[in-house]
Amino acid sequence: MTTSPVLRLAVDAIVFGYKDGQLFVLLIKRRFGSTKGTWALPGGFVLKDESLTGAVHRELKEETGIVVNWMEQLYTFGDDVHRDPRGRVVSVAYFALVDPSTLELRADTDAEAAQWFPIEKTPSLAFDHSKIVRTALERLRAKLTYQPIGFELLDKEFVFSELETLYATILERPLDRRNFRKKFLALGLLKALGKARKGGSGRPAELFRFDRRKYEILQRKGLLLDLGSI
Amino acid sequence: MTTSPVLRLAVDAIVFGYKDGQLFVLLIKRRFGSTKGTWALPGGFVLKDESLTGAVHRELKEETGIVVNWMEQLYTFGDDVHRDPRGRVVSVAYFALVDPSTLELRADTDAEAAQWFPIEKTPSLAFDHSKIVRTALERLRAKLTYQPIGFELLDKEFVFSELETLYATILERPLDRRNFRKKFLALGLLKALGKARKGGSGRPAELFRFDRRKYEILQRKGLLLDLGSI
Repeated sequence: MTTSPVLRLAVDAIVFGYKDGQLFVLLIKRRFGSTKGTWALPGGFVLKDESLTGAVHRELKEETGIVVNWMEQLYTFGDDVHRDPRGRVVSVAYFALVDPSTLELRADTDAEAAQWFPIEKTPSLAFDHSKIVRTALERLRAKLTYQPIGFELLDKEFVFSELETLYATILERPLDRRNFRKKFLALGLLKALGKARKGGSGRPAELFRFDRRKYEILQRKGLLLDLGSI
Repeated sequence: MTTSPVLRLAVDAIVFGYKDGQLFVLLIKRRFGSTKGTWALPGGFVLKDESLTGAVHRELKEETGIVVNWMEQLYTFGDDVHRDPRGRVVSVAYFALVDPSTLELRADTDAEAAQWFPIEKTPSLAFDHSKIVRTALERLRAKLTYQPIGFELLDKEFVFSELETLYATILERPLDRRNFRKKFLALGLLKALGKARKGGSGRPAELFRFDRRKYEILQRKGLLLDLGSI
């Protein structure tokens, strides 16, 4: 039973933003140390008497100015003992999915800058943060198949093509539209509002809202959307 | 940027065993400290230059004598800063599912004893280990709905009722047998071998083996078994 006082514990936050068919990731420019000037995930060391979730919310607030309602633990990165040039650091990563237009960024303390990057234009990142972002993206995509997510990112009333765009954006591929619509409607998660949104050159599109009660049931028991075939 | 040298990192292993319709969990009796004589999960502190997975395999080997091929990271427990009476310890928990009859237990170093307990007869555990076991059970049950697991626990050739018993045991409830069979066969994961196993008083039951290639595809894209209705 050996203790390891030189092993330090950090937290990192992967905050994905979704807006109008574009997926973003929130990054900060590091102010200190050998990684000064490099983009990285918001994060930092856990304090002695601080919970892990307390630490990740604190670091996110300090470095980017934002507060998110909800973060989910992603994974703890500690198999590569040289992942941090400062010594042995194990990092517990958390992720969130938000609407970036509702949040105001403000870099502070450790960070020189805080900025949303389109996911396909992510710069090279400090430490193993590129790997952490890839892991978070994989989790996000996998969750689409077994858990309804992302409804918080749509307006309360939405047309079906907006939901489809959300899924296609996160999956980074076009969907078989007819199949997606058929399978999604079969879940019984959407309520047709019996009215349409006009505009554009096409015919008016039916408006939906989602059934939160059914949504919570599906969250518990798992969404059964065969995304392999859509 | 404050470091926290008094925060220590541990790993814990939740090893579930499945054999003949019974689910077990592997526990050790602690040899040292204020929790001496109490049952707990195998685990211990991470060494300075040791990977997390290296640490959990080492601790499991040292305390129970077993080596498992595969463990999956479950969750990192560190929101309760008082979870360990020795001071601030954050624990990264890993879990595995094995056939206990293939492994020989041998308590060693930190552990006075190592023993399989039927899951419903788990004694009260040191630290927050009861909570960790509950979390692992929830994950195991959830994984049944979106990932084919457990085939390694059946013989290469099995009858359908053995698969059904595996699922019913882990879910801790009876299944709608006709529905389960229909839905499972529809996944195309099982190959009927065109022969039957005789024995017992009933009629001979058809033998299956599972299609490993199809299994790997389903593991990637997610199993779509609507367990809510079976």
